[in-house]
Amino acid sequence: MEEVKWWRVSVGRLKNFIVEIFTSIGTKRHDAEITADVLVTSDQRGIASHGVARLKRYVDGIGRGVMIPNAEIEILKETPVSLLVTGNNGLGQPVSYKTMEKLILKACKSGIAFATVRNSNHYGIAGYYSMMALEKNFIGISMTNSAPLVVPTNAKNMAFGTNPISIAIPTKEEFPWVLDMATSTVPRGKLEVYARQNKSIPIMWATDAEGLPTNDPALVLDNVLNRIGGGLLPLGGVEEISGGHKGYGLGTMVDIFSGILSGGSFGLNVYGHGKDAPPDVCHFFGVINPSLFIPIDKFVSSMDEFIKELRNKPTSKGQDRIWIHGEKEWISQRKNAAEVPIEVKVIDNMNEIAGKLGIYSPFK
Amino acid sequence: MEEVKWWRVSVGRLKNFIVEIFTSIGTKRHDAEITADVLVTSDQRGIASHGVARLKRYVDGIGRGVMIPNAEIEILKETPVSLLVTGNNGLGQPVSYKTMEKLILKACKSGIAFATVRNSNHYGIAGYYSMMALEKNFIGISMTNSAPLVVPTNAKNMAFGTNPISIAIPTKEEFPWVLDMATSTVPRGKLEVYARQNKSIPIMWATDAEGLPTNDPALVLDNVLNRIGGGLLPLGGVEEISGGHKGYGLGTMVDIFSGILSGGSFGLNVYGHGKDAPPDVCHFFGVINPSLFIPIDKFVSSMDEFIKELRNKPTSKGQDRIWIHGEKEWISQRKNAAEVPIEVKVIDNMNEIAGKLGIYSPFK
Repeated sequence: MEEVKWWRVSVGRLKNFIVEIFTSIGTKRHDAEITADVLVTSDQRGIASHGVARLKRYVDGIGRGVMIPNAEIEILKETPVSLLVTGNNGLGQPVSYKTMEKLILKACKSGIAFATVRNSNHYGIAGYYSMMALEKNFIGISMTNSAPLVVPTNAKNMAFGTNPISIAIPTKEEFPWVLDMATSTVPRGKLEVYARQNKSIPIMWATDAEGLPTNDPALVLDNVLNRIGGGLLPLGGVEEISGGHKGYGLGTMVDIFSGILSGGSFGLNVYGHGKDAPPDVCHFFGVINPSLFIPIDKFVSSMDEFIKELRNKPTSKGQDRIWIHGEKEWISQRKNAAEVPIEVKVIDNMNEIAGKLGIYSPFK
Repeated sequence: MEEVKWWRVSVGRLKNFIVEIFTSIGTKRHDAEITADVLVTSDQRGIASHGVARLKRYVDGIGRGVMIPNAEIEILKETPVSLLVTGNNGLGQPVSYKTMEKLILKACKSGIAFATVRNSNHYGIAGYYSMMALEKNFIGISMTNSAPLVVPTNAKNMAFGTNPISIAIPTKEEFPWVLDMATSTVPRGKLEVYARQNKSIPIMWATDAEGLPTNDPALVLDNVLNRIGGGLLPLGGVEEISGGHKGYGLGTMVDIFSGILSGGSFGLNVYGHGKDAPPDVCHFFGVINPSLFIPIDKFVSSMDEFIKELRNKPTSKGQDRIWIHGEKEWISQRKNAAEVPIEVKVIDNMNEIAGKLGIYSPFK
């Protein structure tokens, strides 16, 4: 069993450090600030797999020339309710942030606005962007396709990514309701954790090279890496009897809204154009103003009522509480408002990057 | 083991018969025709649980005064991209059909339109309405809340319905891609089938009165009926480790978009206002024109490409093919274009209803 060591670091200093790294390799300050905020927010919310641990991959991608550090986003098509945007192969965070900003403005006028984005990259946690709509008491929607990892029901090989869906709903006095879920049973990061700890995985999670359920996480990761066969299972597991075809449907749906509707890559083509080509990750965003339908106060009050009703239900035997979507992350974010726990190994990685770039690290 | 007997009947005669039954109890012909078409289409698509087998419940509901046979739908709020509609406690099918018709017209002008509907009833298969958008090569979305049956993760008791989601996507030469799924692992009807056949259910499906997984379907149905505890499990099963919290999130999301956003009932209040009160089922519909983003021909061609890619992948060991969403139902609907299989017991029920109303049955 490998012991993971954490260090609590200042949120402000961590963000500044990340901004320095990005600006030193050509990213504009505003774009670097957005990216730093998305990454650190992920760690603050307790989702370390999508946080500053990703920095190394982004810097590497820029170094290899498949990610453009100073890409300008472009609007390719626009109506009062819609946007088609290209990220021009820049970082996923700035194009996603700016697209949501524009959608929120559109929703202020039209009530509803949707966008698809192509030629982007990994955008971090889906929930960051859906939550941007909450500031105006709007509903936010965020989805993205991703590197192929998930096997369709009855298939031997993977065909699409863990394709997450996030929906954020405003409330009155309660914390916001935020669904942020991969459409696979678990994301790849969970397998990596189990593999490092030499633990078996539940048979709902992944298949071997024949397409049969397995409890060996190292085998799955190796098979996936070498494209031998098998992969992660969609939400619901391997069979229709346990609902696996539903997770398969949701994952496909995300690819349709992100990749196909944007005219970008979908399915195996995401990260599928060769090692020296941009991955062409695609996203889908939406904003809906609830007051198109009912007065906003009634909407947010009803949300509070529903949340209280769910939370206060009696628990099943052996459980001590019922969680609401977004609640754990909200508690974590408040706890980590000033300082956030980062794995020591991740800090070492950042220091190494900074050393190569000649940037001072406050975390030595 | 109970043997189920089926009879293949003429689609035209079956629809006419249902129309006669509804008009004889006060439903306007056009509304009766819509309802008959939705019910029979469900049987044609192989979803007998939501087909003409439901007729008896609708006629009973009208008889008890909780469903209004000749309700007029009313638009309560309208913008170029949105509608808030009340069904005034009429049949769920006509209000849903007419709302989708209006959304499609709106989407012809605005590109996107969404609607919430309150004070409605059971609307049949969610996919009927999402598929209406396909005629114009639009994307259709349909969701509804329903009678409480599903237990949130860690909860002992049920809190919301099997709340289905349907999304229909146009294609070029392939059959349309249609996701139509309950957000529970299985709908209630599956438990009823297993109970009738004295079969055990997989532990992913339901919980007992303590909130623990069980394989006894009769126990679950009895506990649910008498509100003793337990219920159906959300997609993903009982634990977070198998993804149960994701199905719980999706089910809640459907209730938020249908019940809360329409200002109607949600959670335990759906069918929760007493036996003599209307159930206040609520729906959510959406239409998106893909050509807001990319040329329609590119969109539908890419859909064909994605479907072919998925279908032609190698299968996992022991499986003979990969299914695409909507494919089984599309094959079934074509096979049953002129004649449709109906359970003999369901025909007997219809004949009994017709007998009481003094209507001639062509199925004696």
